Amino acid sequence: MKASLKSFASDNNAPVHEAVFRAMMEANEGDAIGYGDDIHTLAAEKKFKDLFGSDVRVFFMLTGTGSNVASLSHVTRPYHAIICSDKAHLEKDECGAPEKMCGCKLHTLTSADGKIQVEQILPLLESKGFEHHAQPKVLSITQATEMGTVYHPEEIRTLARLANEHDLYLHMDGARIANAAASLDLSLAEITRFCGVDILSFGATKNGAMAAEAVVFFDQSMAADFQYTRKQSMQLLSKMRYVSAQFNALLRDDLWLKNARHANKMAALLADKIKDIEDIEITQKVETNAVFACLPDRAIEKLQRRYFFYVWDKGRNEVRWMTAHNTRERDIEEFVEAIRWALG
Amino acid sequence: MKASLKSFASDNNAPVHEAVFRAMMEANEGDAIGYGDDIHTLAAEKKFKDLFGSDVRVFFMLTGTGSNVASLSHVTRPYHAIICSDKAHLEKDECGAPEKMCGCKLHTLTSADGKIQVEQILPLLESKGFEHHAQPKVLSITQATEMGTVYHPEEIRTLARLANEHDLYLHMDGARIANAAASLDLSLAEITRFCGVDILSFGATKNGAMAAEAVVFFDQSMAADFQYTRKQSMQLLSKMRYVSAQFNALLRDDLWLKNARHANKMAALLADKIKDIEDIEITQKVETNAVFACLPDRAIEKLQRRYFFYVWDKGRNEVRWMTAHNTRERDIEEFVEAIRWALG
Amino acid sequence: MKASLKSFASDNNAPVHEAVFRAMMEANEGDAIGYGDDIHTLAAEKKFKDLFGSDVRVFFMLTGTGSNVASLSHVTRPYHAIICSDKAHLEKDECGAPEKMCGCKLHTLTSADGKIQVEQILPLLESKGFEHHAQPKVLSITQATEMGTVYHPEEIRTLARLANEHDLYLHMDGARIANAAASLDLSLAEITRFCGVDILSFGATKNGAMAAEAVVFFDQSMAADFQYTRKQSMQLLSKMRYVSAQFNALLRDDLWLKNARHANKMAALLADKIKDIEDIEITQKVETNAVFACLPDRAIEKLQRRYFFYVWDKGRNEVRWMTAHNTRERDIEEFVEAIRWALG
Amino acid sequence: MKASLKSFASDNNAPVHEAVFRAMMEANEGDAIGYGDDIHTLAAEKKFKDLFGSDVRVFFMLTGTGSNVASLSHVTRPYHAIICSDKAHLEKDECGAPEKMCGCKLHTLTSADGKIQVEQILPLLESKGFEHHAQPKVLSITQATEMGTVYHPEEIRTLARLANEHDLYLHMDGARIANAAASLDLSLAEITRFCGVDILSFGATKNGAMAAEAVVFFDQSMAADFQYTRKQSMQLLSKMRYVSAQFNALLRDDLWLKNARHANKMAALLADKIKDIEDIEITQKVETNAVFACLPDRAIEKLQRRYFFYVWDKGRNEVRWMTAHNTRERDIEEFVEAIRWALG
Repeated sequence: MKASLKSFASDNNAPVHEAVFRAMMEANEGDAIGYGDDIHTLAAEKKFKDLFGSDVRVFFMLTGTGSNVASLSHVTRPYHAIICSDKAHLEKDECGAPEKMCGCKLHTLTSADGKIQVEQILPLLESKGFEHHAQPKVLSITQATEMGTVYHPEEIRTLARLANEHDLYLHMDGARIANAAASLDLSLAEITRFCGVDILSFGATKNGAMAAEAVVFFDQSMAADFQYTRKQSMQLLSKMRYVSAQFNALLRDDLWLKNARHANKMAALLADKIKDIEDIEITQKVETNAVFACLPDRAIEKLQRRYFFYVWDKGRNEVRWMTAHNTRERDIEEFVEAIRWALG
Repeated sequence: MKASLKSFASDNNAPVHEAVFRAMMEANEGDAIGYGDDIHTLAAEKKFKDLFGSDVRVFFMLTGTGSNVASLSHVTRPYHAIICSDKAHLEKDECGAPEKMCGCKLHTLTSADGKIQVEQILPLLESKGFEHHAQPKVLSITQATEMGTVYHPEEIRTLARLANEHDLYLHMDGARIANAAASLDLSLAEITRFCGVDILSFGATKNGAMAAEAVVFFDQSMAADFQYTRKQSMQLLSKMRYVSAQFNALLRDDLWLKNARHANKMAALLADKIKDIEDIEITQKVETNAVFACLPDRAIEKLQRRYFFYVWDKGRNEVRWMTAHNTRERDIEEFVEAIRWALG
Repeated sequence: MKASLKSFASDNNAPVHEAVFRAMMEANEGDAIGYGDDIHTLAAEKKFKDLFGSDVRVFFMLTGTGSNVASLSHVTRPYHAIICSDKAHLEKDECGAPEKMCGCKLHTLTSADGKIQVEQILPLLESKGFEHHAQPKVLSITQATEMGTVYHPEEIRTLARLANEHDLYLHMDGARIANAAASLDLSLAEITRFCGVDILSFGATKNGAMAAEAVVFFDQSMAADFQYTRKQSMQLLSKMRYVSAQFNALLRDDLWLKNARHANKMAALLADKIKDIEDIEITQKVETNAVFACLPDRAIEKLQRRYFFYVWDKGRNEVRWMTAHNTRERDIEEFVEAIRWALG
Repeated sequence: MKASLKSFASDNNAPVHEAVFRAMMEANEGDAIGYGDDIHTLAAEKKFKDLFGSDVRVFFMLTGTGSNVASLSHVTRPYHAIICSDKAHLEKDECGAPEKMCGCKLHTLTSADGKIQVEQILPLLESKGFEHHAQPKVLSITQATEMGTVYHPEEIRTLARLANEHDLYLHMDGARIANAAASLDLSLAEITRFCGVDILSFGATKNGAMAAEAVVFFDQSMAADFQYTRKQSMQLLSKMRYVSAQFNALLRDDLWLKNARHANKMAALLADKIKDIEDIEITQKVETNAVFACLPDRAIEKLQRRYFFYVWDKGRNEVRWMTAHNTRERDIEEFVEAIRWALG
């Protein structure tokens, strides 16, 4: 229990943005039909259509794992395989939910920066048509990646082309899609649909929401019957208006973008302030709201007494520090000071 | 979209109770470690121990279907069978989630009032030991039932004894456990653990929460490893403090009981006011917050233009009307007036 | 262990027909590529095309449960429901394999003779389109039924029409399809494909084979990718030639029909010889190779000391007696004598 | 269709050994109760107890994939992970059946010779206790490996010790357990139970049977309820006596050992005759009945016109040649001649 500490552990340690909270309160008026047949949900769906095109189908979900796994199970059969990075949340942090829910094999590709390459994928496609092998059907990438890096549009397009040529779907885990868009200074559609992504897990929880996730299908035919998969996946909230209200707040006046830009800026500030400190090595490009760094283990231990954060790779003394919509410049300054103290 | 109407469709159409909302806001201070390692969750767990005993294990969940299915999948193997009423939410309203997640067969017993009897269960137990048959392992009952009725403690004890004698677990779907306790004027422990229930799906969403459900294991050994099942079942919220805060509000000063008593009272009032109206037949005992009634179909249609509610059984023109923590006496009076108008 | 007794327990207690054994031996020459790429399998596939049409797709399987479950899992999604009789092997005797493998809910319809009626099915179809309910997708019937009765072509056509109108597939569990064809004096195609059946589990094991089952898809598009489902369902035999050889023997010179006719004839003989015995009541129409009868329980016990057979319904002292390709008239005569002795 | 060619593709391309066939014929006398309650099955179970100890529990199965997957699903929960080599049949050649049936994640370890090492396993065990990660529960090794190599007893003991220390089960895929025992000149118990193996998939199909596999549990408590898992996994044959008869033949007078020794000897002969041929490089130790070799691709193509075998690794022109119980010295001589011709 370390609740009183400022946390650099994850952007999900941050509180709910006050505008989001306000929107939830405003939705808390009188009765509303359950399961999404309410005006807040209608409004939120409209906002997704404004973002991505009027023909998209969006379904609100409760967790990021829920979005990833329910959407993947919907577009696969158990004899399919899903290809992803070995750093993917899907592979590492969902306690085997993809295997349990989809029945599929995950093929993981080694990746230092969380991104995967065409050349890594090609050998796996030789399994196609061989009845003893799970059949590759989905390519899943994370944007921004679990390592804080981003795929550039041309990289996504290259993967989409490969997917298209080999009858694979391109799924994007967008738990931090806002941070990626902010980093690239592109619209949400420009880094997803316009690049050939088929299915997007759209995350808002890490962007200032309480619990608001969505599955966006860019091809309506893939979305057919997804309401049943959502329900069966235990992701259908009865009081849906409160999830929808969170999206309504974040998608109003680009609050999602302001939150993401701010978090990214705080990570950049942190990186900038520590980059010249001896004994610290930044190990990943700081493109969004995460800083990965190696520092001496006794310094890590010392620092953890005052701040909560994760050791990412014990073997090499690598830590992950994340910023969020509520991180202040002063928090960074104090943290850097503490780092110097821990090292000194 | 009928959001402006007063709804008698379900207690999940009601808004969040203001004290619950306030508690969530109070939890919205600064950073908190994710996934339950925070002071709000610690406090909520403490409240469950106060209610049920210090050795219970409680896990917070996101949906009622999630609580039912994750807990049942945890205590079964796929070759097991789960016995429940044909009115059970498990059987009727979870889109096959129990089968998908547990792999188990559901044996459903015909029930007019939502309750099941020992004599119905006994023939199913003959399958025990026969390798071609799914093996009965769980008895699941709903309290209050989907028909608004309640199991009396001696009835639960009888089922628990049977379960115990035949190596079955007794699971209780407590989506409306508060309404049952209020109806019986007994404590939550008195109608669950003290009667021999093994596993409880504790529902708060219908009692004034936004999205707060819990699995309570009365036997710690059953709870072992459940954290993995919860995660894999996509029911682990990162910003857990907001779920915990809801429980903290409802379990403080018996707010859960006040809410339940009020909802029950409003249903009783409605039943009382319509019981002598010709052309209306109340079809279930009104023991909690639901009134089931038959009335002419043209009256149903007319009434549905002004109020939202469900036709329960089209064949016999039976409707379900539910009250909630926010139903006012005046709402009942206006509704009864509308019923008379629709019938007249 | 009662191996020395003549068994009337099941047609799967019979040995392998000698012509089938001979065919297996003839296939036991030299090397053959595994998994079905051999001349015996090619020949057997050809025989199925001769029976059902050149565009059918047939897949050889190892068990009847395997055929039923793998084919049903292939044409369903986990949120679908499968409708069948409460006497169906699928429901009663597969240890929950359909639920485990398909993830689907089974809707069972009460049936005295093992056959289901349109009027029973219609109410279940009201679930269509309601996201909380499993969505009906398959109608599964057994031919001959588990009660020894047969569906007449017009009955199947009526069900097929209903299925077609409501976007359901019609699956037939043909574990005893040969006995049904023999009983109706119709070809195998006339009681399956020509009546609108979509998918057939074709059983040969009970007809004189050792272990030879097949899934037949009458619509090629349904068969797409089934090779992966078969493999993943652990039903793909490496030394496939020995399964194929069994089919080659049974489908050569109508051996399957001779075996089925003989078994049916023996059951008819048994029924004829006992129908006037006081204290015995035949409880089902004897249309294929099973005789269901009620007789006093002490007679059952006495008879079971000399013959192996199953008590079907303990409550009403109902037994099932089955004949097979190897049952001789003399066996029937001795058995009837024993029945008289047991009763007397 | 290349049935007339001598096959070096797999030991499952070989016919059934004549003694096995004879035993099946001898079992084909009169009626026998289904599903294993017959004298042949009793005798075969006795033979397994003689081999491994009177307290083992053995279950006869239909396919090797079935043995692996059903036994692993029985001892795991879906949130568990199974650790194996990246060459394991489990990972590569079961079309995702382990994921579908167990719901588990497979952690694969890179291995050149098909064997895995303690140092590779240790980092995976750091996931233990972390709720977001699948929990390692089974270590699965193949004996003989898919690369034709064998684990020596001390290697197995080291892995068993690790497994034991970390609460993992040690599973052995023994599709070619006979070849391993022959190679090591040790008894079947000495390379399994006595080394600490918990569960053995015992394969006979590749050793001269038609379709005979078994799951052997060395700890009776693990075997509890496995009859239901077998049935639900569609691996329970009704006419069980024919599977049991195959085991009875192979386990009588060490036929299994003679078959395995012979196959191993033929592979050694092949390796010996080609080891000095220029342009051929043998790439794995020839310890059992497989020879892996690299040779020029045009030679491969030429040779495949006359013999059936698999290219193992296209990238490096590596092929796999397997011998079986029916391979004759003359077959090897002719094959070597053909290799020289293809190279020349």
